[in-house]
Amino acid sequence: MPQISDKGLAMPSSPIRKLVPYSEAAKSRGVKVYHLNIGQPDIKTPELALNAIKNIKESVIEYSHSAGNVSYRKKLAESYKKFDINVNCEEIIVTNGGSEAITISFMSTLNIGDEVIIPEPFYANYNGFAIQSGVVIKPITSSIANDFALPSIEEFEKIITPKTKGIVICNPNNPTGYLYSKEELFRLAEIVKKYDLYLYSDEVYREFCYDGHTHFSAMNLPGLEQNVIMLDSVSKRYSMCGARVGWLITKNKEVIKTAMKFAQARLCPPSFGQIAAEAAIDTPAEYFKEVYDEYILRRNFMVSELNKIPGVYCPNPKGAFYTVVKLPIDDADRFSQWILEDFEYNKQTVMVAPATGFYNTKGLGKNEVRIAYVLKIEDLRNAIETLKHALEVYPGRTK
Amino acid sequence: MPQISDKGLAMPSSPIRKLVPYSEAAKSRGVKVYHLNIGQPDIKTPELALNAIKNIKESVIEYSHSAGNVSYRKKLAESYKKFDINVNCEEIIVTNGGSEAITISFMSTLNIGDEVIIPEPFYANYNGFAIQSGVVIKPITSSIANDFALPSIEEFEKIITPKTKGIVICNPNNPTGYLYSKEELFRLAEIVKKYDLYLYSDEVYREFCYDGHTHFSAMNLPGLEQNVIMLDSVSKRYSMCGARVGWLITKNKEVIKTAMKFAQARLCPPSFGQIAAEAAIDTPAEYFKEVYDEYILRRNFMVSELNKIPGVYCPNPKGAFYTVVKLPIDDADRFSQWILEDFEYNKQTVMVAPATGFYNTKGLGKNEVRIAYVLKIEDLRNAIETLKHALEVYPGRTK
Repeated sequence: MPQISDKGLAMPSSPIRKLVPYSEAAKSRGVKVYHLNIGQPDIKTPELALNAIKNIKESVIEYSHSAGNVSYRKKLAESYKKFDINVNCEEIIVTNGGSEAITISFMSTLNIGDEVIIPEPFYANYNGFAIQSGVVIKPITSSIANDFALPSIEEFEKIITPKTKGIVICNPNNPTGYLYSKEELFRLAEIVKKYDLYLYSDEVYREFCYDGHTHFSAMNLPGLEQNVIMLDSVSKRYSMCGARVGWLITKNKEVIKTAMKFAQARLCPPSFGQIAAEAAIDTPAEYFKEVYDEYILRRNFMVSELNKIPGVYCPNPKGAFYTVVKLPIDDADRFSQWILEDFEYNKQTVMVAPATGFYNTKGLGKNEVRIAYVLKIEDLRNAIETLKHALEVYPGRTK
Repeated sequence: MPQISDKGLAMPSSPIRKLVPYSEAAKSRGVKVYHLNIGQPDIKTPELALNAIKNIKESVIEYSHSAGNVSYRKKLAESYKKFDINVNCEEIIVTNGGSEAITISFMSTLNIGDEVIIPEPFYANYNGFAIQSGVVIKPITSSIANDFALPSIEEFEKIITPKTKGIVICNPNNPTGYLYSKEELFRLAEIVKKYDLYLYSDEVYREFCYDGHTHFSAMNLPGLEQNVIMLDSVSKRYSMCGARVGWLITKNKEVIKTAMKFAQARLCPPSFGQIAAEAAIDTPAEYFKEVYDEYILRRNFMVSELNKIPGVYCPNPKGAFYTVVKLPIDDADRFSQWILEDFEYNKQTVMVAPATGFYNTKGLGKNEVRIAYVLKIEDLRNAIETLKHALEVYPGRTK
């Protein structure tokens, strides 16, 4: 039998997917499983995006431009003005979701063996994208002790080597919900400039900022025009994860020219998704207001309820819709499986994502889980209640 | 300024795209340009596929399963029965177009520096996919002298090395339109078996077979269940290139397991496209009959008209909607640019794809161009008439 590739063997399986069989088994026992493990919002996709799809006039679904429809890119560029981000349509390449924006960015700028620094815990799929591109991730640990703030410049400089070619940030952060401040970004900019690195800035949660905090984009870091590649997507903003429409933005013309060669090889991003995404740009402010109100309600409820449970610490995240929570447990992977397999409360249980999968450093995150607050308040209440009871009887409870 | 990657520098620009500025310039001079260069059919997408999109019931466009919707994969598997191809939904992974089916297949099975043999001329984007995966393409030349039939086993064996891990075929072939016979596939199977290679079989043009010839799938080669990875797509079959729905099929469980890890990292293929694609499976036979009748008309017209031009040889392709034609010219790249830049006939000209871009061996294809017969007969008539007049006055004419 012919070989499986080294890359294929190295690709991680998602830490969450390992739990799926246990979740399925619980459901087949008649137990209701609350999914706190996934980033699939229950928020409705804006109607005008769905209507654009329902009213398509095309009779031939042709290839679009490899960089995405010009009309879409122009409207996208225009839409950034409200964030004072100045881009034009030639600086945007539309991709098959934010995922491809990252792989094309990596492939265009990084060689095999090059290193990128990423504050951990980080979005687990960055591991897969790095393996695909032959890139090595050097983690820099952020800590729940200071709510996952950006590590100091000194910490970054400790792990910079001649092979370091870039830094990846996700802001607001998945999985921690941390929102980097303007000051933190300016500190980061110093390192990026000093070592002439790329700064890959994943800003797909830009609109999800709470408590009056505003998002500062890496695109607005002065003097970094040639260094910043911004990654974006419609998935969370308009709750249309399945549309698979993301994009990369950079002012670096050589990067755009190179990324275009990868974009042309795979022909184009999806036409239907682009039609919905273009319409979605006109989503009225009330939609976001409603979404905001809903998430802030959920977050406040979740933070307050979780922190009432003995031994639990939940930071108060300022962005996105995730939080990494400290639990009084010996092993997050074991706990996440146990709660599905061996526990139920009122015929219900919960699925959480063990934080170990978001850390690159072995041994970290063992008493942390990621919780996505993408459920309605009633469900969130039941889920947290269940979690509380589970922690009371979990055999691996630490204190 | 930070670096551009080696891969990025190595990625080829499409040979056709280099001609786009000349085509645009011609249009802006008021010259009508007939596009014989592209594989974008003018055939209408089946109405039931468009209606499925127009009637979507979903209110949240969620991530689909990473391998594609189960309902779609089940129906797909079922649809292969008419070709006597026996597959189930677990053996299918739906991808972002056929392009991603190839890159995921390569990444799952090939290491950096591994070699794949591809009969040339071949689909130019295979070059880009190989570079992305760090794979080396070893071309084996097929010749217009025998209408681009499969080279002999001996020719294959001459270039097999310990690094050879696979063979890629496209059947029916883009760019040549050649349809490999069952006998040719059985010959190929011997080499695949003998050296335990992968056979990546791109069968996206399966339905486009003419003159009573039938397609024989690599999936039906006995004893090669662990070796064959079939690549497929809705793009040409239903004229919905923009849907970006392709898939890979293999009976090799290890390959599926590995490919799934890559599929999970990028989350899922496009939801809208899958809805249209699932509906498209029920496209009535009359649709294909009409498409067939239209293409056979075009092909017959094209082959007959081209072969009337002195110094031109056009094989009679049995599949797809392309042909590689021999012209009495010194340099296909120069000719393709000249005809757009310096020639017009009755205020019209044509754009063709120089065959050089489809050969991996330097110097081959210099007197050949690929023609896609994706135009209506009237347009095809004007285009060939124009080509005829151009060849009469082209300064680089060879005889």
